[in-house]
Amino acid sequence: MNQHSPAEQAAREPEGYETLSVSVDGDGIALLTLDRPDALNAFDLTMARELLRFFTVDAHDDGIRAVVVTGAGRAFCAGMDLSGEGNVFGLDESLRPTPEEFYAHFDEPPYEDGIRDTGGKVTLAIHALPKPVIAAINGAAVGIGVTMTLAMDARLASTKARIGFVFGRLGVVPEATSTWFLPRLVGLAQALDWVYSADIFDGAEALRGGLVRSVHEPDDLVEAALDLARSWVVGRSPVALALARQMLRRNSAASHPLDAHLSDSLAMFYTSIGDGKEGVAAFLEKRPAQFEGRASDLPRIYPGE
Amino acid sequence: MNQHSPAEQAAREPEGYETLSVSVDGDGIALLTLDRPDALNAFDLTMARELLRFFTVDAHDDGIRAVVVTGAGRAFCAGMDLSGEGNVFGLDESLRPTPEEFYAHFDEPPYEDGIRDTGGKVTLAIHALPKPVIAAINGAAVGIGVTMTLAMDARLASTKARIGFVFGRLGVVPEATSTWFLPRLVGLAQALDWVYSADIFDGAEALRGGLVRSVHEPDDLVEAALDLARSWVVGRSPVALALARQMLRRNSAASHPLDAHLSDSLAMFYTSIGDGKEGVAAFLEKRPAQFEGRASDLPRIYPGE
Amino acid sequence: MNQHSPAEQAAREPEGYETLSVSVDGDGIALLTLDRPDALNAFDLTMARELLRFFTVDAHDDGIRAVVVTGAGRAFCAGMDLSGEGNVFGLDESLRPTPEEFYAHFDEPPYEDGIRDTGGKVTLAIHALPKPVIAAINGAAVGIGVTMTLAMDARLASTKARIGFVFGRLGVVPEATSTWFLPRLVGLAQALDWVYSADIFDGAEALRGGLVRSVHEPDDLVEAALDLARSWVVGRSPVALALARQMLRRNSAASHPLDAHLSDSLAMFYTSIGDGKEGVAAFLEKRPAQFEGRASDLPRIYPGE
Repeated sequence: MNQHSPAEQAAREPEGYETLSVSVDGDGIALLTLDRPDALNAFDLTMARELLRFFTVDAHDDGIRAVVVTGAGRAFCAGMDLSGEGNVFGLDESLRPTPEEFYAHFDEPPYEDGIRDTGGKVTLAIHALPKPVIAAINGAAVGIGVTMTLAMDARLASTKARIGFVFGRLGVVPEATSTWFLPRLVGLAQALDWVYSADIFDGAEALRGGLVRSVHEPDDLVEAALDLARSWVVGRSPVALALARQMLRRNSAASHPLDAHLSDSLAMFYTSIGDGKEGVAAFLEKRPAQFEGRASDLPRIYPGE
Repeated sequence: MNQHSPAEQAAREPEGYETLSVSVDGDGIALLTLDRPDALNAFDLTMARELLRFFTVDAHDDGIRAVVVTGAGRAFCAGMDLSGEGNVFGLDESLRPTPEEFYAHFDEPPYEDGIRDTGGKVTLAIHALPKPVIAAINGAAVGIGVTMTLAMDARLASTKARIGFVFGRLGVVPEATSTWFLPRLVGLAQALDWVYSADIFDGAEALRGGLVRSVHEPDDLVEAALDLARSWVVGRSPVALALARQMLRRNSAASHPLDAHLSDSLAMFYTSIGDGKEGVAAFLEKRPAQFEGRASDLPRIYPGE
Repeated sequence: MNQHSPAEQAAREPEGYETLSVSVDGDGIALLTLDRPDALNAFDLTMARELLRFFTVDAHDDGIRAVVVTGAGRAFCAGMDLSGEGNVFGLDESLRPTPEEFYAHFDEPPYEDGIRDTGGKVTLAIHALPKPVIAAINGAAVGIGVTMTLAMDARLASTKARIGFVFGRLGVVPEATSTWFLPRLVGLAQALDWVYSADIFDGAEALRGGLVRSVHEPDDLVEAALDLARSWVVGRSPVALALARQMLRRNSAASHPLDAHLSDSLAMFYTSIGDGKEGVAAFLEKRPAQFEGRASDLPRIYPGE
């Protein structure tokens, strides 16, 4: 076990990105900026690779407690970059797998790079991250620009946000696991409507439909998202928070509450004899808790994982 | 592959119904009218059979792009027809299957006709249709009159709508797969309340609870539903739309977003090398797209189907 | 089959509790009061045992048609009792099961008493009860004080309610199967926010977020909950109501509407040849129905149960 509390750990600031910029503040809140402003932060294969690296490797640093994602310039992310040559989605057209072939081998060549949706690789990594992620939607968030935010834990919009599940206008389908997340966030009827209509809508409509939690003046947006992140993580056990995140996301999709009972029994047991001892003692002694657990060292609560 | 775009296809207008009437307009929007006005469009075995025929056969015509369902006269559908002799639900009382027997043989005689809920056969067909269906609830929609609309993609109500999950007052249970759909549309607490209360409520209450998307003056209702249908399908790829519908309905009920990732990867792949090529080209050339795919010829994206 | 209608049965009033008090009125509505007012009705192992006895045994009496739960004094339930010696959660710290070991043997010693969350045992019993349960949240409902209400069928709050998913402040996780229920009641984003924030909020915020259905003056709360219970059960078939409750809870979590079709076909069949005969006859004859079915004698509609 780590003998230093998270607050004592210096966050390592990730470097070496072409399409992203990252800073980490003293509370461990990482600000990830999609940073291709001349292209309205359009999502290309380099950005896909770098987002995957960030969410599967760099963001797991225990010095990072939460992540806020926003866009440089006037857009959040204007969608898939359609300006490239050839197949804009980076797909290998020579492949024609049956579902049986693809489902059995999706994680191997040639399907892994030639068929699998790059946006979905990113959202699966966000879903699996043991800490909260918040979208600060500062402008256009279209196609993958909005579907990538669905796997995050909250979405805030500025008054300049312009959001659209526009896939149908291009003859393609919603991706990035959005058909799993969107109905869980806004209900099935609203999800069907936004996908069928393929219209662009603003933050007020997103708020009305339950997609974003609040709408802000453009200058206040990122600070509001950082404040929300701080309110969730500062002074909290990273272990308890990571387990709660995992349980809400998994157990809410289980077929029977017994599944929740088993995993939350184990999670309650292991936190009770871990950070919970300090948490209860601090509560009874009316002092701030000093938690020592690390998100990178979670107790296992599901079989086979 | 069909070499004609859907707009060039004349819709074949289905005929030969006793309890329904159907018309199809120039945009391929079918208007299906429940047409037993003297019986308040009550659902009898003939109507069940004809709705099943419509949604499993006739509505699959590629000339039909979407379906709007409404009622003739002052009711939408006043529920199961209770006026007949004998067992009003058409059930064979001599059968007494255990769940083990019924689940193993539900699709065979004698269970197929003697036990299986006829409303559920209709809603499963609506659920499986590769195009949107919209309910225009013009009056009483009670029992099967409202549960049949839950499998549709949107519900609009007139100010004269009177809706009720009244099963409990008759000593029977909600059917037509409504216990699967209703909580997904309005949340579990609202679903429990409407089913327990078994009360009749109006369009305003339905709007507040999330069951309908809008409430209209009686004379405007059907046109609003037709307009919504047009806004969803005209100029869109029938293939992309059908796949998106299938994905939202199935993946939202999957236990893990990986299930969505696999099916949406395949759907994005096959649409990208299909109607998506034309869609992206038209977008870049700022012209309307001419899609050639057909809903009756979808790529497979789930194994074993 | 019971030859007496439920209204003719005298309710047996459960006795012998230390931490609860129970009364049953003439309509069969049980009022269960968490009754440790000096301890703000904090949840200790005795209360856990007694709630489990009530919901697995006493509440199954056919004389009880519905249950309203409230708290004595100024709190509903102030959470887990943290005042005891040693491990406040009653856990056996010498146990350290892997998920594989625990999931395979959770219902046996030593895991049954040493690891399994006592709150979850209670909420699973509420979930399985064949009649409605309503929470009347009269004051503080914190930790298990609120999570125990999620398995109930409705929640009403007084203006003095103070609700919080405060687990994160203590370094522990939400329990009592709350990660299964909360997202189904309020959506995933609201669930994540309340759990991450771990804040205390009032009835107005609970109403806005969809956790409670209404907010009442303190003196009106319990009567409103009793009235709601009466409106759900008086004059209704206990069998039809119990089956509808089971179907909404189970089928809403099924992966495909076919699962709902099979169980609701069987439920409609067995109620149609049971209480439904009387219900339809009474409806056609415009008289009150006299149902004879009993919740303790439900037809089986799921295999293997």
